[in-house]
Amino acid sequence: MILENLIGITAGILTSISMLPQLLKVIKEKTVEDLSLPMIIILITGLSLWVWYGIIKNELPIIISNAFAVLVNLFLLSYYLRFKDK
Amino acid sequence: MILENLIGITAGILTSISMLPQLLKVIKEKTVEDLSLPMIIILITGLSLWVWYGIIKNELPIIISNAFAVLVNLFLLSYYLRFKDK
Repeated sequence: MILENLIGITAGILTSISMLPQLLKVIKEKTVEDLSLPMIIILITGLSLWVWYGIIKNELPIIISNAFAVLVNLFLLSYYLRFKDK
Repeated sequence: MILENLIGITAGILTSISMLPQLLKVIKEKTVEDLSLPMIIILITGLSLWVWYGIIKNELPIIISNAFAVLVNLFLLSYYLRFKDK
C-alpha cells in the first residue's frame, strides 16, 4: 500500500511537471496557436473520466494528479477562448 | 467492476487520442522544435511509473493507456534525437 502510493504520487508529480512548459508558454506569450479546441475538450473529458475512475477505485494518486491536469487544461481552455482571435 | 473498467477504458482512449496531433505533426513536418528533451524524459519516466503502479494494482486500463503513452513518447524521443539538428 505504501509502495504503490509512493509510485503513484511520484508518477503524478512527474506527469504534472511535464504539462507546465505548455502552460507557462501560453501565459507568457499569450499565444494559443499551439492549442486545438477539440483536443483540449477531448483531453478534459478523458482526464475527468480518470478522476471519476479514481473516485470509484478510491485511489488518491489517480484522483489528485488527474484533477490537477483537469485544472491546467481548464485554464488553457479559458486562455484559448480569450486569446483565440488575437 | 464492469462500470469502472468501462470508465477507465474510455478515459484511456480519450487521453490517448489527445496525444495524436503532436505525434502526427512531428511525423509530417519532421520538426521537433516544439519538443523539449528534459520534458520528454520526465514524461516517459512518469508514464512508466504509472504503468508500474497499474501492474501493482492489477488495473488493466491504467497499464494499457500509460503503456501506449510511453510508446508515443519513446517515438517522439527517437524523432527528437534524429531531427534535433535539422
